[in-house]
Amino acid sequence: MPLQQLPLYQQRVEAQLQQLLAAKLHTDVRLLDAMSYSLLLGGKRIRPYLVYACGTLLGASLHDLDGPAAALEAIHSYSLIHDDLPAMDNDDLRRGKPTCHKAYDEATAILAGDALQALAFDIIASHPYQQVSSQSVVSMLQKLAQAAGYSGMCGGQAIDLAQTNQATNLQQLERMHRLKTGALIECAVQLAWLCSRKQDPAELAALQAFAGALGLAFQVQDDILDIESDTQTLGKPQGSDTKANKSTYPALLGLPQAKEKAQQLYQDALDALAALPYNTDELRGFARYIIERKF
Amino acid sequence: MPLQQLPLYQQRVEAQLQQLLAAKLHTDVRLLDAMSYSLLLGGKRIRPYLVYACGTLLGASLHDLDGPAAALEAIHSYSLIHDDLPAMDNDDLRRGKPTCHKAYDEATAILAGDALQALAFDIIASHPYQQVSSQSVVSMLQKLAQAAGYSGMCGGQAIDLAQTNQATNLQQLERMHRLKTGALIECAVQLAWLCSRKQDPAELAALQAFAGALGLAFQVQDDILDIESDTQTLGKPQGSDTKANKSTYPALLGLPQAKEKAQQLYQDALDALAALPYNTDELRGFARYIIERKF
Repeated sequence: MPLQQLPLYQQRVEAQLQQLLAAKLHTDVRLLDAMSYSLLLGGKRIRPYLVYACGTLLGASLHDLDGPAAALEAIHSYSLIHDDLPAMDNDDLRRGKPTCHKAYDEATAILAGDALQALAFDIIASHPYQQVSSQSVVSMLQKLAQAAGYSGMCGGQAIDLAQTNQATNLQQLERMHRLKTGALIECAVQLAWLCSRKQDPAELAALQAFAGALGLAFQVQDDILDIESDTQTLGKPQGSDTKANKSTYPALLGLPQAKEKAQQLYQDALDALAALPYNTDELRGFARYIIERKF
Repeated sequence: MPLQQLPLYQQRVEAQLQQLLAAKLHTDVRLLDAMSYSLLLGGKRIRPYLVYACGTLLGASLHDLDGPAAALEAIHSYSLIHDDLPAMDNDDLRRGKPTCHKAYDEATAILAGDALQALAFDIIASHPYQQVSSQSVVSMLQKLAQAAGYSGMCGGQAIDLAQTNQATNLQQLERMHRLKTGALIECAVQLAWLCSRKQDPAELAALQAFAGALGLAFQVQDDILDIESDTQTLGKPQGSDTKANKSTYPALLGLPQAKEKAQQLYQDALDALAALPYNTDELRGFARYIIERKF
């Protein structure tokens, strides 16, 4: 499978984010530094990739997709800053570097997260679209707000915190992941679809099914890597789930069954793509990358 | 001066916020409780009041104004939760009750703030407007994001933190307040204007000048009350600015000159209103209330 576009799209969103930050006035340099530090710390840029890959599949222009791609990464980045805080997961390391509150301080990290969340909505609202109607822009902002908020990512993180040190079952674990990370990954394909002209509901349904399976596959693989990989490859401490008493797929299912689960979700993702009347080789390759990745 | 509408608008936004929260599914009850606790804790509802009062002045319907009014209060409420956190101002009391992280816990308070910020954008994007175009809704979301983020409220809070325990001058203090609280108060009149049909730039300029002077007058009066009022009346510890080594107008100017400053800003606010071709008695009464209030 090809997956030729991943590095290109990673570079594209990187350039977008750099430009957006460079355009900011120096209101408070330390806060801006902390925002840049976290936003430009690297990462797989999975959500921007999905915006670009799904959007171009549906005929949207890369230019129009730049807005939602950058916005999703801003939301993702803010969520990592806040999740790493001492009161939350209390992590010192992220992508091999000190977490935001370690590199700066707690107050700055809280504010950097807050400002990145606001930035995400600003990016989508301010983007100079060529072929996206104002009505679709409002819908994008609505979907993003719902995916990021109580009914999505924040709700999922609250469930994650509540589940830590608690007995949980597979259904509860899946629900938590579908909110905590799944909502934003599904949002990526929704925003891509809203940038397209056709906006065929059946195609959205197929892409959402793909994104849903993919998001969960990503989590299962994450749990597997937490056991099988090492700290240097991961860029964060190996075994941190077990140490933090987090529920994981391998803990609930056993390692071999967790790997089967990842394969099943991979297959579900491919099945969802099969319903689309396009060449989906690129997205198929991406699904494979998600379950074969080592970090 | 009348100021007849304040209790009516307070009740109206209260009902809006209650409805919005009641419509939420029970994703995580503790998080939803924490959001409700902070959002429905009372307060003067100054930002919603300005949306309603300025919007109706310009011919917008109360129904259409419900969206931005509720959204601004959600942003304001989130900012109070995060400002009160131990890593920020470390306050135990807000409006006479335990702050969110005291009533719940730090992680829940961080998440409640995050979710309330997302909710604000959701509210404006999802509101069933009758006479507001999608283009104006996009502009509202853009203005709100910019007022809330790095170039507005978050930037102001970062400057506030940096100024604590530091020598500062009047210009720096004013700049901090214009971002930290002024941006959102100016945003209230911008959103009201965007809900109107006429959208006359000269009228927006007058309303922004009014809101700018009013926001600063509010801060000067806040600083005066921190010296002259008492803990029970304030609902938060009297003398907390001095205790926290915060720069204030009375500290920089002396108390009598700070009172003169408040009067001057009140006059500036009235002068700005004089440029408008409407009966502004209600808003004039509100400006007077702001500098005469005791809590």
